[in-house]
Amino acid sequence: MAKAAEISPFAPQAPAAMPVVEGVRFSACEAGIRYKGRTDLMVAVFDAGTTAAGVLTQSKTCSAPVLWCRESLKRGSARALVVNSGNANAFTGRKGREAVMLTAEFAAKAVGCRQDEVYLASTGVIGEPLDARKFAHLLEGLAKSAKADAGTDAARAILTTDTFPKVVSRTARIGGVDVTLAGFCKGAGMIAPDMATMLCFLFTDAAIAAAPLQRLVAEGAAGSFNCMTVDGDTSTSDTCLLFATGAAEKRGQKPITDASDPALGDFKARLDEMMRELAIMVAKDGEGLSKFVTIDVTGAESDAAARTIGLSIANSPLVKTAIAGEDPNWGRIVMAVGKSGEAADRDRLSIWFGERIVAREGERAAEYDEPTMAAYMKNPEIAIRVDVGIGKGRARIWTCDLTHGYISVNADYRS
Amino acid sequence: MAKAAEISPFAPQAPAAMPVVEGVRFSACEAGIRYKGRTDLMVAVFDAGTTAAGVLTQSKTCSAPVLWCRESLKRGSARALVVNSGNANAFTGRKGREAVMLTAEFAAKAVGCRQDEVYLASTGVIGEPLDARKFAHLLEGLAKSAKADAGTDAARAILTTDTFPKVVSRTARIGGVDVTLAGFCKGAGMIAPDMATMLCFLFTDAAIAAAPLQRLVAEGAAGSFNCMTVDGDTSTSDTCLLFATGAAEKRGQKPITDASDPALGDFKARLDEMMRELAIMVAKDGEGLSKFVTIDVTGAESDAAARTIGLSIANSPLVKTAIAGEDPNWGRIVMAVGKSGEAADRDRLSIWFGERIVAREGERAAEYDEPTMAAYMKNPEIAIRVDVGIGKGRARIWTCDLTHGYISVNADYRS
Repeated sequence: MAKAAEISPFAPQAPAAMPVVEGVRFSACEAGIRYKGRTDLMVAVFDAGTTAAGVLTQSKTCSAPVLWCRESLKRGSARALVVNSGNANAFTGRKGREAVMLTAEFAAKAVGCRQDEVYLASTGVIGEPLDARKFAHLLEGLAKSAKADAGTDAARAILTTDTFPKVVSRTARIGGVDVTLAGFCKGAGMIAPDMATMLCFLFTDAAIAAAPLQRLVAEGAAGSFNCMTVDGDTSTSDTCLLFATGAAEKRGQKPITDASDPALGDFKARLDEMMRELAIMVAKDGEGLSKFVTIDVTGAESDAAARTIGLSIANSPLVKTAIAGEDPNWGRIVMAVGKSGEAADRDRLSIWFGERIVAREGERAAEYDEPTMAAYMKNPEIAIRVDVGIGKGRARIWTCDLTHGYISVNADYRS
Repeated sequence: MAKAAEISPFAPQAPAAMPVVEGVRFSACEAGIRYKGRTDLMVAVFDAGTTAAGVLTQSKTCSAPVLWCRESLKRGSARALVVNSGNANAFTGRKGREAVMLTAEFAAKAVGCRQDEVYLASTGVIGEPLDARKFAHLLEGLAKSAKADAGTDAARAILTTDTFPKVVSRTARIGGVDVTLAGFCKGAGMIAPDMATMLCFLFTDAAIAAAPLQRLVAEGAAGSFNCMTVDGDTSTSDTCLLFATGAAEKRGQKPITDASDPALGDFKARLDEMMRELAIMVAKDGEGLSKFVTIDVTGAESDAAARTIGLSIANSPLVKTAIAGEDPNWGRIVMAVGKSGEAADRDRLSIWFGERIVAREGERAAEYDEPTMAAYMKNPEIAIRVDVGIGKGRARIWTCDLTHGYISVNADYRS
């Protein structure tokens, strides 16, 4: 079986750098929250007039920072973002709320803004109290030293079990004016819909009001982070925020106030692309993975049914271990389709691995050739297609295999 | 982290033997279907008048033998049971139906009964055609040589990745007459509701009509096999059948025709007990397990909600790997409660490991002591209790941890 690498085999040779997004400045430091010898606290400072939108975990036991962001998003105005790694400040009760309030208070003071213009996120161990007094006093210095070109440092400070930073950027045009879109995310385990399964922070200098910004980020998440799974475990802290500084208005961009404004077309396309790219990076950094897997489901009763079937395949431990074992075990795909609960007809089901059909209309395809399929399974990237054969619903899901590396990472993470 | 044993650490020193059940005879042989040097085919022959009842997988891609049993159960009369291991005859299309029909034809001829009095089950690899011509001719000899005391041999012939045979028996009283209840099951992976998650065959000499027998087996499965999970993967072949020969009628047992007959009380209690014991044996033979885990959920909105929350905890890869790592990581339990989708209030949630509380009303309990909890996690059997704090619903779920052993077993199973 393939050996899981300590660093994802899909890690880029050189991670992309965050470009400057006018109106945002970053800084990061070693606050010593849990890790030693690495940064674990970052601040982003936004110019006045920045709007914010976001999608947050659906978990019924969500973290204190998630509850805080939910409140701040009601107003949709942003001046500061504070993120720490090493401790998720989740299931920390009254102490968790106090940590959030103290952090927001210090951040607002440091930046000179209202507390509800501060956004917070924490990632790491659940259930351990986070002592914000250990780092709140650092926020003033971080805000003062924040620089437009320090986004790459910020992207590193939010990592936990990730093996590489995940940074993406694009240029989009809104009504003839170029705007910048850039962002980063973290996530490697406890990764499943709903929803975002990780922390993701996106920044643009476009001038877009909070309401249309909200629709953009929600639609983007539906087609990206909500189609990706590592282990089916949904975090208590999932947070995806999009900040728009409006700096492009000075360069002649007409501010967008309506989500259906046709001038948003290119921006939306680039944002969707960026979010998909980030989601794929997360699946490509799945804990202990040796292979990246794309699952296409067609012919389902509806798109929603196709997504459920795709996730049932992607989250099946037996499918994931077969892929780790480079075993073209399509029988386990049949099992996962059958257990999804969605309509399926055994005798109309067809399955492809890569370009080659392995099963057609409920039985092994005549052209199935074990050595050919076994050779295909040695590829680092595996594509599985399933046609359910009963309707027109389709979905694409991204995931990874389940290896000894996942067990090692997660059996030893906390102790 | 605990090392997973090649044979389950919970395997009994000496597996229980199947007692004689009057009216049933067994035989087993090496048909060479897939395995070498072990039995892989068993036949049970029933006296005329035997009734049958059963529960079958809910999978939408169920196997050909499951479809066959569904038909036979409509009549509820039984004269023969044929089970093979090594090949599940699932997703084998037309060839699968042909294999089933051929097997039933030969079995009916061998025993001298109607084909719809034959019950069939197959377990093993999915998607490979099962060539019934390789073993159908053996059925006549098997039927002839069947013996009342050969049940233990039959129990061994149905195993796949199991590391020990699972046999249970009881004596029950129906209206002052002693009757025997005995049976066996197999299952170690691809184990999850709904429903039975494995093959289970139960036999009694009691005289019970098919309709009340059906209610008994369905209620028994709900409280046993449907509360147990190894990996959340539902088999295409799950089959649990209960056969009643009626031989006890000669000893004065008044035949039961009504499920609500109070004379069934003790029988039902013993049957439920037996099915729970078998379900626990399956979880204790979970592929690669090092620990057996009991999860009690209380205070949920309803019993059904409690079961969903319990299964969400039991199937979470992060909870299972933490247990494998002997890590009292209750934060992951919070995560699994939160992702279940059932009503929960973070700030009313309490969690116990064994007798000790680790979290109370949404945060770590004051009396939590890491060394004490770490010592508790070294036990081979772990009990987790979660009180959701919002209602009266309760459920108990049995499962096991997720270890390197599971990965090894499943990444190498087919190739």
